[in-house]
Amino acid sequence: MTCARYVHGYSPRESVRLGDQAQTLADLLHGDERYPSGALVLEAGCGTGAQTVILTRKNPTAQFVSVDIAPESLEQASRAARRVGANNVRFEQADLLQLPYSNGMFDAVFVCFVLEHLSAPLRALTELGRVLRPGGTVTVIEGDHGSAYFHPESALARKAIQCLVDLQKQAGGDALIGRRLYPVLCEAGFTRVRVTPRVVYADASRPEMVEGFTRNTFNAMVEGIADDVRRKGMMDAASWRQGIADLHRAAGPDGVFNYTFFRARAQKAV
Amino acid sequence: MTCARYVHGYSPRESVRLGDQAQTLADLLHGDERYPSGALVLEAGCGTGAQTVILTRKNPTAQFVSVDIAPESLEQASRAARRVGANNVRFEQADLLQLPYSNGMFDAVFVCFVLEHLSAPLRALTELGRVLRPGGTVTVIEGDHGSAYFHPESALARKAIQCLVDLQKQAGGDALIGRRLYPVLCEAGFTRVRVTPRVVYADASRPEMVEGFTRNTFNAMVEGIADDVRRKGMMDAASWRQGIADLHRAAGPDGVFNYTFFRARAQKAV
Repeated sequence: MTCARYVHGYSPRESVRLGDQAQTLADLLHGDERYPSGALVLEAGCGTGAQTVILTRKNPTAQFVSVDIAPESLEQASRAARRVGANNVRFEQADLLQLPYSNGMFDAVFVCFVLEHLSAPLRALTELGRVLRPGGTVTVIEGDHGSAYFHPESALARKAIQCLVDLQKQAGGDALIGRRLYPVLCEAGFTRVRVTPRVVYADASRPEMVEGFTRNTFNAMVEGIADDVRRKGMMDAASWRQGIADLHRAAGPDGVFNYTFFRARAQKAV
Repeated sequence: MTCARYVHGYSPRESVRLGDQAQTLADLLHGDERYPSGALVLEAGCGTGAQTVILTRKNPTAQFVSVDIAPESLEQASRAARRVGANNVRFEQADLLQLPYSNGMFDAVFVCFVLEHLSAPLRALTELGRVLRPGGTVTVIEGDHGSAYFHPESALARKAIQCLVDLQKQAGGDALIGRRLYPVLCEAGFTRVRVTPRVVYADASRPEMVEGFTRNTFNAMVEGIADDVRRKGMMDAASWRQGIADLHRAAGPDGVFNYTFFRARAQKAV
């Protein structure tokens, strides 16, 4: 695949994080994703299978083809699927920009946390549209790091998050893609595009969100770029430490953290 | 009242804007606000009555006391209430920091778009708690201008919004108060504090939100500070014009605009 290399996603700790993230967020993001019996669904960019195990379990009578460019991710995804006894999915290596499938072969396409990593999200969506049957639906779920804000306010915490955005940009991706799902899906030729924001809000009255999202997902993701930030001289060590401390402060007893994911549903014109 | 002077709210055009805002947002923000029959509700800081006319109509068997510091606003609010035939509200001039009511007199308190203007929101909430009966509820609704983001991205549009935040700060208020409702309500001694974000998302598939919120509410509010920005030299004229144009660009056919309001509900300890 000619996509950007991942900013995150490959270390063992990251796999744990992505698993946590999937569990905490699954209901919020695609707990209501339902496919009819017999539907053939393409999961494009399945990674290590974090969403696959949920989708296949919630839709036991649909058939999934889950693809990724990275053999090592597919290997993990396959093991995860076996672990939960999912027998309605097959894994295949494929390039999102050049899928080995014929036109209109799928009833639905599911894409989650993938476009943010691509240098050509529009081309990918166009290719996904090609393999979708007329009238078929595409579901796209992406975050937007520019949607993160918190209390207490901290310029250094913001700067640390900006490093993540900048690194993803340097790698060819777009950490702010959530907000532009509507125009990019329209441009890719889909109709009936409907985007709904799905907000994660975490204060001390919701300890499971503070732990599962603020600490173990978002803050862990920012902390995961520490080496890159240091190597590239993006922030000095003391500022970085303070920025991370401030992010954790937002997960404290009087802290608040907000983040918005975007879920888009669209149709291929009949 | 010793509160900050309003950054917005007093010009005729502003009154229209606030009316539009109330109509577009009422359902999102407090369309589900219900009070039991016979309940005595204090609406603290009713302004020109934009929320009053909705609250009183949706809760015809509750009794409202709507107060504000400004006689001219009360006059308008009173006219608005008469226009819709609301006979379950009386208007009184009062200082939120020193209410002319006895302890525990109200069953509920409703505060909408008020704390953002106060230099002492904690003191106001403490005073509101005083006049609330034990077990009574307080509802607080506030925006957060730091929650605004949009597509296409624009540094000048962000800067224009920052001028609004800075002006509100200079006037003693806090345009970012939405995100800290949880800690401030806890600090004021309330229990069972529950905050829910309420997101306004506007793209071309939701023309009523683009028109009613992005253009006529948010962009109009930013444009409303043009004179202050120029007088104080906060942005040069060309940058300001471009920032405003970019905000309107986000209301265009391929634009997207996001904003989050926060609604908090809490109880006075029994």
